[in-house]
Amino acid sequence: MSTNMIKNKLGRLVPEEINGKKQVPFKGLGKHRPVGRKYGPPIPTSIDYPHDGNKVVKSLKEALDLCGLKDGMTISTHHHLRDGDLVSNMIFDIAHDKKLKDLVWFPSASFPCNEPIIEYIQDGTINRIEGSMNGPLGRAVSLGKMNGTAVLRSHGGRVQAIQDGEVVIDIAVIAAPTADMFGNATATEGDSACGVLGYAKPDYLYADKVIVVTDNLVDFPCMPMLIEGNYVDYVVVVDKIGIPEKIVSGTTQITKSPDRLFIAELTAKFCEMTGLLHDGCYMQAGAGGTSLAIGVYMHEILKRKGESARLGFGGTTKYMVQMLEEGTMQHIMDAQAFDLDAVASISKNKGHHHYPVFNAYNFHSKGNLTSMMDIMILGATEIDVDFNGNVVTHSDGYLLHGIGGWQNCLHAKTVILPVPLFRDRIPVIVDSVTTITGPGELIDVVITERGIAINPKRKDLLDAVKGSGLPIKTIQQLKAEAEAICGIPKKPKFKDKPVAVIKWVDGTIIDSVFELDI
Amino acid sequence: MSTNMIKNKLGRLVPEEINGKKQVPFKGLGKHRPVGRKYGPPIPTSIDYPHDGNKVVKSLKEALDLCGLKDGMTISTHHHLRDGDLVSNMIFDIAHDKKLKDLVWFPSASFPCNEPIIEYIQDGTINRIEGSMNGPLGRAVSLGKMNGTAVLRSHGGRVQAIQDGEVVIDIAVIAAPTADMFGNATATEGDSACGVLGYAKPDYLYADKVIVVTDNLVDFPCMPMLIEGNYVDYVVVVDKIGIPEKIVSGTTQITKSPDRLFIAELTAKFCEMTGLLHDGCYMQAGAGGTSLAIGVYMHEILKRKGESARLGFGGTTKYMVQMLEEGTMQHIMDAQAFDLDAVASISKNKGHHHYPVFNAYNFHSKGNLTSMMDIMILGATEIDVDFNGNVVTHSDGYLLHGIGGWQNCLHAKTVILPVPLFRDRIPVIVDSVTTITGPGELIDVVITERGIAINPKRKDLLDAVKGSGLPIKTIQQLKAEAEAICGIPKKPKFKDKPVAVIKWVDGTIIDSVFELDI
Repeated sequence: MSTNMIKNKLGRLVPEEINGKKQVPFKGLGKHRPVGRKYGPPIPTSIDYPHDGNKVVKSLKEALDLCGLKDGMTISTHHHLRDGDLVSNMIFDIAHDKKLKDLVWFPSASFPCNEPIIEYIQDGTINRIEGSMNGPLGRAVSLGKMNGTAVLRSHGGRVQAIQDGEVVIDIAVIAAPTADMFGNATATEGDSACGVLGYAKPDYLYADKVIVVTDNLVDFPCMPMLIEGNYVDYVVVVDKIGIPEKIVSGTTQITKSPDRLFIAELTAKFCEMTGLLHDGCYMQAGAGGTSLAIGVYMHEILKRKGESARLGFGGTTKYMVQMLEEGTMQHIMDAQAFDLDAVASISKNKGHHHYPVFNAYNFHSKGNLTSMMDIMILGATEIDVDFNGNVVTHSDGYLLHGIGGWQNCLHAKTVILPVPLFRDRIPVIVDSVTTITGPGELIDVVITERGIAINPKRKDLLDAVKGSGLPIKTIQQLKAEAEAICGIPKKPKFKDKPVAVIKWVDGTIIDSVFELDI
Repeated sequence: MSTNMIKNKLGRLVPEEINGKKQVPFKGLGKHRPVGRKYGPPIPTSIDYPHDGNKVVKSLKEALDLCGLKDGMTISTHHHLRDGDLVSNMIFDIAHDKKLKDLVWFPSASFPCNEPIIEYIQDGTINRIEGSMNGPLGRAVSLGKMNGTAVLRSHGGRVQAIQDGEVVIDIAVIAAPTADMFGNATATEGDSACGVLGYAKPDYLYADKVIVVTDNLVDFPCMPMLIEGNYVDYVVVVDKIGIPEKIVSGTTQITKSPDRLFIAELTAKFCEMTGLLHDGCYMQAGAGGTSLAIGVYMHEILKRKGESARLGFGGTTKYMVQMLEEGTMQHIMDAQAFDLDAVASISKNKGHHHYPVFNAYNFHSKGNLTSMMDIMILGATEIDVDFNGNVVTHSDGYLLHGIGGWQNCLHAKTVILPVPLFRDRIPVIVDSVTTITGPGELIDVVITERGIAINPKRKDLLDAVKGSGLPIKTIQQLKAEAEAICGIPKKPKFKDKPVAVIKWVDGTIIDSVFELDI
């Protein structure tokens, strides 16, 4: 890899070109303006589609053949089936059997269940993954096992890249819990019900070819249509698209750790005392164990005061559904269902709406929901003294997580990162994060079990906590406390070769991930 | 107008060029294949939109100014408010006050309420209308009062033209019965509730700028979002967007004419005896007086037999809602609500779905709903002995109607035109229609009070009626009977100048409308 590396606005080394395409380095917040027009896929004609509306073909292989699958193509998938996804691996098993090379896999995220893909990365079936990687795949990338350079994007950045034609999807393969012969598909019914299908929205709108794969073919019309059949080329029926118990997986357990519960309670208290948590506020928290606990504490505060949040954006969990049903949250805007209660709520509760990241997170759009949110609770693997955050690599240098919606969510009015001071004796607050995933300008508050650090630029919040008795410290103080306990861990050694780049929400490159030197 | 006229596949004279753009003459069914890519509007960025999501500006004039309204621009509107629409005229009042010239109005249809627009056509504020015209505007066009050449498209053809970039909308102005500050909009609530907003779907997806005009601003989020706020530039609040009693106008009255009722009963009987009306069939009829009566007869037949239609595509009326609620229709796919019962049903009945013409009718799509329909009941102003149909001009040569979804619906499996043999002593069946709106190949059956003519190419239907006792005649026989009563009316005289063209569903020109010579 002889690509030139240049320093971006944050001082990070990023490649000028990756995978044969010229790149734009991060220029600072709100500094990069897009030019040109949205991508236009080829114009289809009804002449080429069955008049009776029946697009069912007999196998995924047949559908891929009919779509003209060949070397070098980009194949997209979504991750609503999470760690229970059976469809993504099928695609590359077929491609491998066909001895295809240099494919690009463009998932909205990958999970441990996609570990078999590593073989196809190593044998050249897949040139690269452009998409969030969780676990084994990221580890393989860190060890330099992929031919191409991985590209990580936020959920909103993925929409932006598709819309703007930065990534042209040759074939979108959409696993659908329920579909009809025409390709209309929905997600609240079927053995693999996953509630919503919003991640696949840009895929079917912009892909050249679209295949719907279902294990629950129903009579036309399948409504409400989360996938619009008039964008679909072929429908395939398989035995199983997913493993139900892994689709709504174990992520939605409230933490039992006393430290984490303490952080959660402190976060809720902080939001209450600063007035951030108020009647009619817009709020969002993730589905991690600490976030769930924060939600429960906030629910209790709102209930006690007879107040309610105007809306919550999900990743929806049973705790949000409880807030909706008990009146402490008026609306759930739902991009992803994390558990069965969330899936059930969508059809049942009038205030529970589909709201894809396509609509909420795409920065190259006429406004985003994210900047309207009052309270945003996020995590991080590392935070540095400039409040820069990392969510993709660990301090040992391994790429182990996707960005998810994290970068998009940083645009909220107040971004709070409740994190433990250290994990496995590795401090979370560091001098400089391994990989900048989001700039410190957008991160307002860090809450740990040893105190709260407020970004100095948030003078309003610093004023609001005066006399509150809350344990306010500087970020440097928190760092020092962690180091006093854990020491300063040795930095990992990297080679010069970038194995992955991290895109910012506007398509520029905010940082690189380098191959580990071990 | 010195444009060259050429003969298309049907032998009709059509201009090689209109309004400065080269045209493709109709080539025959399924013969024209589109090339190139879907239109891509400019890529926006959230940098340019308010972070709090509030896009409300103080007037429609301000919004139009902010959108850069200038000479020659194309402005689109929808017609869900039908003859009660107050917004379209407002736009051109503002344009006229600003002394703008040569605008193109691109409505999904116009109504008698838009008569004031004639003044702006005559003074050059508007160069031309590209859209279905009902009544006074069409009459003005026929008399040569418009500078540019009008372009009439079917509802599906309008979507095709927008998607393919044949018509680039500079500013879409979307009247919305309910909206929020971000531009999400819906149609089942508010004083001007019109049920659905599907006609505006291609407009907001593809227009460069989008303005939502509402008289019912609600708190964010306005759900379900029939208009997606992340495509919207500005929101304007006005006193009234429509006159409620004219929005759900008087079109939905069952005919009281004994002749028409006879035709309706005969049509229903024909469908029953030929087996077209069967358990699980897909059916569509319009909202005219005869069509409504046909629906009622079919409802009775299905009820008697304990059967049900799988789905009906609406233009929805209270009669379809009754079928849904009494179990003779399982699903309503709704592109347009014609009365208050239809509006109320959408929120109430699980089997009543939004299904815009964008999804159902666009020929440049991956299949259409229209070709899946078993029974399609349509009207016509004229039908000729080759079964060609006319719905836009009368035999006196005046352009008086839009195409609506008529051309799209011709793709159904069996197209039936129940028409009176004559209207005001003018025969409906003629040697050659004044304006071919749809080719005879697609029209299967003509049903009149004096008998039924089946297109000779439908041998299956000719077989099916053998021994049925139904009054089967040839189309020539029907024509002769009408002429025996009415005589043959004198043909209107036309000048050489085409004042309007009729596009086919694939964007080619199927016929021209010429200026009347009177």
